[in-house]
Amino acid sequence: MKVDFQVDLVHSAKTNMNACAVLLKMAAWSEKILQLLRRMNNFYLPGSSRSSCFRFEVDGSQVGWVPPHVASLLKRHPQVFSPPQGGAVRLCPSLDSYESRSEAVDAVLQSLRQEDISCLRGWRDERYSVMPRFSDAPLMWMERAATSLFGVKRYGVHINGYTVGDGGEVSMWLARRSRTKQTYPGLLDNMAAGGLAAGVGIRNTLIKECEEEARIPADIAATARPVSTVSYTYEDEEGVFPESQFVFDLQLPVGFRPSIGDGEVQDFYLLPIEEVKDLLAGDDFKPNSAMVVLDFLIRHSIIEPDAEPFYQDFLTGLHQTL
Amino acid sequence: MKVDFQVDLVHSAKTNMNACAVLLKMAAWSEKILQLLRRMNNFYLPGSSRSSCFRFEVDGSQVGWVPPHVASLLKRHPQVFSPPQGGAVRLCPSLDSYESRSEAVDAVLQSLRQEDISCLRGWRDERYSVMPRFSDAPLMWMERAATSLFGVKRYGVHINGYTVGDGGEVSMWLARRSRTKQTYPGLLDNMAAGGLAAGVGIRNTLIKECEEEARIPADIAATARPVSTVSYTYEDEEGVFPESQFVFDLQLPVGFRPSIGDGEVQDFYLLPIEEVKDLLAGDDFKPNSAMVVLDFLIRHSIIEPDAEPFYQDFLTGLHQTL
Repeated sequence: MKVDFQVDLVHSAKTNMNACAVLLKMAAWSEKILQLLRRMNNFYLPGSSRSSCFRFEVDGSQVGWVPPHVASLLKRHPQVFSPPQGGAVRLCPSLDSYESRSEAVDAVLQSLRQEDISCLRGWRDERYSVMPRFSDAPLMWMERAATSLFGVKRYGVHINGYTVGDGGEVSMWLARRSRTKQTYPGLLDNMAAGGLAAGVGIRNTLIKECEEEARIPADIAATARPVSTVSYTYEDEEGVFPESQFVFDLQLPVGFRPSIGDGEVQDFYLLPIEEVKDLLAGDDFKPNSAMVVLDFLIRHSIIEPDAEPFYQDFLTGLHQTL
Repeated sequence: MKVDFQVDLVHSAKTNMNACAVLLKMAAWSEKILQLLRRMNNFYLPGSSRSSCFRFEVDGSQVGWVPPHVASLLKRHPQVFSPPQGGAVRLCPSLDSYESRSEAVDAVLQSLRQEDISCLRGWRDERYSVMPRFSDAPLMWMERAATSLFGVKRYGVHINGYTVGDGGEVSMWLARRSRTKQTYPGLLDNMAAGGLAAGVGIRNTLIKECEEEARIPADIAATARPVSTVSYTYEDEEGVFPESQFVFDLQLPVGFRPSIGDGEVQDFYLLPIEEVKDLLAGDDFKPNSAMVVLDFLIRHSIIEPDAEPFYQDFLTGLHQTL
């Protein structure tokens, strides 16, 4: 009897310790995800450069945020940028068309490329539209690599590739970024993703990125379903990054394998969704793509609100805009 | 030949007019939805009472917003509320436990019921938890009807009941609220919904509301999937309403019919999802429930981002928090 009792006690202690370990792991995961969301929205936090940034205005509307060190550089080009005044840097009103604005700013940026401005070393010859809101007509285009100097909002498309097994079990395709990528080399990423270039539609971007990055035929990519956006603004030493990603879910046949396309990806993995969830809390994931996966986990009921105290904070952290 | 040409012209004009009519209808719908989201987040807009509200602080943490006219009323109870100072109304620090705070505030509220304060006419004897964030331990409870006087955040559960036909066509169950409801009588609503009372879990609230409002057996309600939250803050003449709703999707068998339970609902309708979408833009829908349906439309790919310029604005409007 006494022995039984001791065995029971030991068993119960072990069970409790296991339960404690599970709870501690969950709490650590939640805390890491909150940190990710805070980091990706650090422009909104007290102590960010936001209060010292200048509004970037084109044709009377704000289209971005210019950090003080960039404003100093722009002073050398008064024929394009009016000197900072009233908290704003303005494009000269004499530049009164889409083309004239775009070409004048591009000429300044080409001259700045001669100087040691790290983000411009990533020059891509990709034109992004500049407008106050996505629903507004573009006022000009700007080289993608320069948008962070002006805090101009960038839009993109991210695609969650996933499978559902016979028993309903969800697995997700992840890409491992090439080690030679300019940004986030070697990190885990969504199956396919890409920026919205000026004049290209959202669905067209999706089809193109699926084909280029993962060799997914257009007829399969076309079955992708629009489900969400993920929006955030962070700042780092290269500038201010307000971004919004259009999110699509693409359910793939169980036997289908994406394959390496244009060399932006070094490998693809199909992982059980719980394993993907664990990976989000590590340092191996491209941060904005981790947010896109978090949004997937919530929409696909992988996270239970009764068990996740920050459930609501996760959702608001995924949808911040200026 | 000439006649054919004229017939072609007439046909083409008709086609264009139809296309124009469709586009105009879509634009009008989008604008109405934006207006709904702005109205439900009007506490964030310039010109709201936010700048004249006092922070409501308990135990050193902000848990709400007190409008000036409420702050004046509270001055009569200095043993419970410290006089407004530094932009804050504070619960007296001598009230240092959950019970003592809850009872002292309840006594004040009971006395205020004697006066002509419209929201307190809706007294429900339902206790809501008061805490800085959902993940924090509750500092006290407060009568549901009084939370808007203090701008204390309220949490609830909303359930999208829907069916998917053999051809994949989605229909949604809507409730018509009873004409005798205190709030939003006679308006369309989600199939079931309810507030989170102090100490009751999210899933338990869902099961209870499904049973009480729509006579959905617990084994069916338990298959509901957590998918989102919808968060917003509005103000009206009754106070400040910061709210966050936990959203569940409940796919029902095609033959299943919810039935009237506790009399909060007068009727249930099963409508094709496109018809539900149109209804959101009218004045016949409880506003926060319309937001929950909008979130459903986005997650279920009923809205195509290439065709909806405010797609991203919709998503951020659904997820605002203070």
